Amino acid sequence: MLARLDADRAAVDAAARRVMRRCDELARVTASETGIERVYLSPEHARANRLAAEWMRELGMSTRQDAAGNLVGRLDAADPDAPALMIGSHLDTVLDAGRYDGMLGVLAALEVVRLLRAPAPASSASAPHSDGAHRSPFRFAIEVVAFWDEEGTRFGKALLGSSAAAGSWDDRWWALQDADGVSVRQAFLEFGLDPARIGEAARRPEELVGYLEAHIEQGPELHRRGESLAVVSSIASARRFQLVVEGEARHAGGTPYDMRRDALLGASEAALAVERLCRAEHHIIGTVGQLEAFPGAMNVVPGEARFSLDLRGELDGHRDAVWSALELELDAIMGRRGLRWRADEVHNAAAVGCAPLLQDVVREGIATTLEPGADAPATLFSPAGHDGMSIGAITDIGMLFLRNPDGISHHPDEDVSTEDVAHGLRALAESVLHLAAERG
Amino acid sequence: MLARLDADRAAVDAAARRVMRRCDELARVTASETGIERVYLSPEHARANRLAAEWMRELGMSTRQDAAGNLVGRLDAADPDAPALMIGSHLDTVLDAGRYDGMLGVLAALEVVRLLRAPAPASSASAPHSDGAHRSPFRFAIEVVAFWDEEGTRFGKALLGSSAAAGSWDDRWWALQDADGVSVRQAFLEFGLDPARIGEAARRPEELVGYLEAHIEQGPELHRRGESLAVVSSIASARRFQLVVEGEARHAGGTPYDMRRDALLGASEAALAVERLCRAEHHIIGTVGQLEAFPGAMNVVPGEARFSLDLRGELDGHRDAVWSALELELDAIMGRRGLRWRADEVHNAAAVGCAPLLQDVVREGIATTLEPGADAPATLFSPAGHDGMSIGAITDIGMLFLRNPDGISHHPDEDVSTEDVAHGLRALAESVLHLAAERG
Repeated sequence: MLARLDADRAAVDAAARRVMRRCDELARVTASETGIERVYLSPEHARANRLAAEWMRELGMSTRQDAAGNLVGRLDAADPDAPALMIGSHLDTVLDAGRYDGMLGVLAALEVVRLLRAPAPASSASAPHSDGAHRSPFRFAIEVVAFWDEEGTRFGKALLGSSAAAGSWDDRWWALQDADGVSVRQAFLEFGLDPARIGEAARRPEELVGYLEAHIEQGPELHRRGESLAVVSSIASARRFQLVVEGEARHAGGTPYDMRRDALLGASEAALAVERLCRAEHHIIGTVGQLEAFPGAMNVVPGEARFSLDLRGELDGHRDAVWSALELELDAIMGRRGLRWRADEVHNAAAVGCAPLLQDVVREGIATTLEPGADAPATLFSPAGHDGMSIGAITDIGMLFLRNPDGISHHPDEDVSTEDVAHGLRALAESVLHLAAERG
Repeated sequence: MLARLDADRAAVDAAARRVMRRCDELARVTASETGIERVYLSPEHARANRLAAEWMRELGMSTRQDAAGNLVGRLDAADPDAPALMIGSHLDTVLDAGRYDGMLGVLAALEVVRLLRAPAPASSASAPHSDGAHRSPFRFAIEVVAFWDEEGTRFGKALLGSSAAAGSWDDRWWALQDADGVSVRQAFLEFGLDPARIGEAARRPEELVGYLEAHIEQGPELHRRGESLAVVSSIASARRFQLVVEGEARHAGGTPYDMRRDALLGASEAALAVERLCRAEHHIIGTVGQLEAFPGAMNVVPGEARFSLDLRGELDGHRDAVWSALELELDAIMGRRGLRWRADEVHNAAAVGCAPLLQDVVREGIATTLEPGADAPATLFSPAGHDGMSIGAITDIGMLFLRNPDGISHHPDEDVSTEDVAHGLRALAESVLHLAAERG
């Protein structure tokens, strides 16, 4: 049953170069003059969706923007009601981002469609601007999906788009606000989306065959091993907190140290405690990415400090135990300094495992890119979050990591080689073929 | 030659109550709905000046706003060209301020004028809306001055107004920007001031007899001693720095600790080092009042952190030695973490001594408020900066501190008692009488 990829090396290399060019093109869809910034429900969101929808239609796919602003392109199977294999990633970015995190997975999905699609029977109408009518050669349809707000840059809560697609939207999220005080609800309306229709973004499990995503590793493991690609075993879970430390704002000159209750010094000790406690553990990582002091004047002892904590671990139980230890440590620090503290948990996701079948087909796909006699492909867990964390609730997920030189991500220097992208495209296309073969 | 204050206790008490009422009235001139915020060259600056100018004119004073936005009210002596004794303080505030720091000194100066002024000869024209024509009863004129930007809240550089009055304006300050990127030059133009005329704000030493200021202590010393008032010996000096720590922004999930160069953790260690080094010294105080991490996303290791340092000491040499020790400590911290750091010095003022003559007259003024047999008035140095630091360059300065319950300042809970204000008004008026007697 297994058809090997009917594309020569030149076609795959051309596809990889197209992915790189389009990553550059998407990088110009940015709200910042000095870097890449493309956040949920922004004008750049709309521009990026228009651009990607064009690329989808060129491939003969039908396109729609769902009720949460995610973009979906579809290539039907012979049976138009057949369930779909979703392949994709996200198009939103962190602030001052790189150009591959998310985007690469969406553009790779498009090239996989280009490599695998079959000409449609002559009677089918071709989509406007496409290079001819095509359909999925499998018993399942293929959807390319571009999720939004994977990063949570704008509203602090990540995975809004894929959560809507998974039918797990929480109505409390409407009130979340961005830095300018704009709520999610208001942003939906300004973007032209109807909050009342959010439920329409939800996919039903029976509509789906599974979800595959290619993503740069965002870590140094493949780089250290000298390998191009890895199978992902699971997406480790993050808990995110917004912490507030309260002391007393006082005059910087006239307040002796014995009368100070300096909230910023408490927060500084807390940030260092996060580092100390997490470093002592294996596969636990905690990051304070935001910290600000209030009132924030040079000559006022800070009466309040706010900071964020992103806490990840391969195993949920281990991560939760570290948080409990941190709570005790923060109690001790703040107690010594006469400060109060509290933490609001803004995100709590359980680790999500990749489906054994999809891990297998991805492993077989990667194996087709290796020299004969090479070691089996690496299997890594992902300490970074991905849309699969939401989508895993409604369908099987599988992921493939591409080598990320030096592991630099969420930074303008984020990189991937065209050669690794070519390996990745071949591996992903072969994975789909293996999946089709497995499903008979 | 010495005339004792010709005002009974009821008049002084009424004056103190008026000061307290007007502090409340000024507190309503604020840019914030939830607290007091009145910064340089803001609409609130204009409103506060209009209000204070009205109060000056009620006392028969002529008023003008100088080329830097400072407000000056004047009561001429018989000789209209006679030099002036300036009495005053500032009307700008920190963010989320109290209602006495600065304002109290301006309003007290007005009440001292009310207690001391003499009816003008019948031929003099009275100022409009005043309660009759008055003049200074001394050989010198009396000016009440309300400086602006003592705190440096808006542009980070303190004492802009009094520096202009002292003729020490530095043209590099035009380019300083507020948090919204508005430059000092632009703010002058928007406020209706002509930057080209800044030199006209400068006072000549021969125009002035001296400068007196009453201010809350902004510290706990008088409260701890159970005394109302103190003579100020000198204004200790501050150096202020804006520090930048540079590391590398990386993905929070995928970057192991051994590959992180986390700028925020470096800044946190630095803030704690400031506390540790300064606590170990006597009469040295260092404060980190501002700190922010960039790019400032929950899931990105901070690649940059910026923070402020306000460093004060009774003795300039001691303070500078502590800064040198801090530089070495920061080199060590940042070196260990693979970070770069730099410091821009945005303020550096030498300690300014109060003139012995003005210390004496303030001491004699305070003595008139004490019970017979009481200890001599306390003499304190000011760890907090004041406008006298600028004005001391062109004329003698003297200061009087009022008890500040619990030493809370730069905070909405900042307080002073009406009784202490009454003592302060009497002491300040008596000081002026003593000065007039000394000058013959």
